[in-house]
Amino acid sequence: LDTKFEIMSHRVVFIGAGNLATRLSSALAEKDFKILQVYSRTQLAAKTLAMKFRAKYTVLPADITSRADIYFVALADSAWDDVLPLVDFGDRLVVHCSGSMPLSALAKFAKNRGVFYPLQTFSKNRDVDFREIPVFIEANSEKNIDTLVQIGREISDSVSVLDSEKRLLMHIAAVFSCNFVNFFYSVAFEILKSNEISFDVLKPLIMETARKVQEMHPLQAQTGPAFRFDENIIEKHMKALDAFPESKEMYYFISKSIFEHHQKKR
Amino acid sequence: LDTKFEIMSHRVVFIGAGNLATRLSSALAEKDFKILQVYSRTQLAAKTLAMKFRAKYTVLPADITSRADIYFVALADSAWDDVLPLVDFGDRLVVHCSGSMPLSALAKFAKNRGVFYPLQTFSKNRDVDFREIPVFIEANSEKNIDTLVQIGREISDSVSVLDSEKRLLMHIAAVFSCNFVNFFYSVAFEILKSNEISFDVLKPLIMETARKVQEMHPLQAQTGPAFRFDENIIEKHMKALDAFPESKEMYYFISKSIFEHHQKKR
Repeated sequence: LDTKFEIMSHRVVFIGAGNLATRLSSALAEKDFKILQVYSRTQLAAKTLAMKFRAKYTVLPADITSRADIYFVALADSAWDDVLPLVDFGDRLVVHCSGSMPLSALAKFAKNRGVFYPLQTFSKNRDVDFREIPVFIEANSEKNIDTLVQIGREISDSVSVLDSEKRLLMHIAAVFSCNFVNFFYSVAFEILKSNEISFDVLKPLIMETARKVQEMHPLQAQTGPAFRFDENIIEKHMKALDAFPESKEMYYFISKSIFEHHQKKR
Repeated sequence: LDTKFEIMSHRVVFIGAGNLATRLSSALAEKDFKILQVYSRTQLAAKTLAMKFRAKYTVLPADITSRADIYFVALADSAWDDVLPLVDFGDRLVVHCSGSMPLSALAKFAKNRGVFYPLQTFSKNRDVDFREIPVFIEANSEKNIDTLVQIGREISDSVSVLDSEKRLLMHIAAVFSCNFVNFFYSVAFEILKSNEISFDVLKPLIMETARKVQEMHPLQAQTGPAFRFDENIIEKHMKALDAFPESKEMYYFISKSIFEHHQKKR
């Protein structure tokens, strides 16, 4: 039976060819998985990813092969209805990779279904160490859970089972600590750029800010004028931000939140 | 003359014993600087820091020695008026360490004055590699600039001269990319905690988010539902955040900003 699993679960199709699909398929291909085919609405994206594995590619949902063991759906959920009903999945395992879509969203498309959610920010051309990425699994049967946990362990040192509701909240936490954080990096970038200061000056600060919370509680790591309620400095900043109205509004809003948040804790 | 500088500029007093004072004095003490005395309003803080260097300490501004070569003012500016008028600085060099206070703010207290601003987030009990921290210098004479640049180079590989106005904007950029970022880490922490999920799951994501912008432009590094304008996911997040009204308001505000920001760029 184990041998059967080993053979059975290794023929993979990727439905989607974006950042996550690119990095996950690459991590699987480095192990014993065979990427059979890549589907994407965009021919260039499908072809570019498929070429990495000498796999086939298609832009036509109806041409997605039914001969794989497992299908990874890494598409925006708004595209699911245009693609998934046209594929003959049979009994094959179909898993999506979304933090915020419930497992049940696959019910109308697949008899055997699961979720395989790697918690990381991916870029097509940036390699990541998949072994350190936490992978969260959910599936509609114990057998499918086992299969996905086993696949997860092939590429990651941290595989857990988590239900849809908790995964959604984890995704929101990830949005705050990655997407929103990166947005603030770009706000900082633009403030510096307009003053002809290189973004390089912030790089050690950005790294140290991230490193601190690897060891300290974020509340303990908090510094800055809003945390100290340094009104004089905050006023100076607000005045200087007159030239950056959007950033000014954010500055005020977040400073107020920090102050109120820490008032409560004190 | 060089020898004179070497001797002259090495007797240091710290006025303030907070995070920045602790890390800066430690970096200087590792070189040939002699920390003579530490002042703080809080006896415990003054004593704790002074003990690291077998230095004297005081809580009385009038007891601050006039025999040092250089005074580092690392106090909230709201405390300056209670302390600095009571110290006899004579011709000695007095420098503040604030990103947002202009050089001119020291004019009423000191004839020779400057700014020594290390751009980093400091915690008392957390060692940092000072060599990689950018230090920004300003002073009221070429001679004082030279002195501060020389001191800066003793402890950092990146020393630049920057005027007060640009330093203020740099400080604002630092607030966005450190203080506000860390606040979002704590928002994420609390969302996870209320669902009994360990903050550990976010640590690789936080590190990767910081590492990405060491090499990529932050606009290129941006990912997430707001950037993709994934309304379905954003709605799910907003609904799930009903239990966290403050975080919900922030989620909406920042998502909207990201969307508008990237709409313009597209």
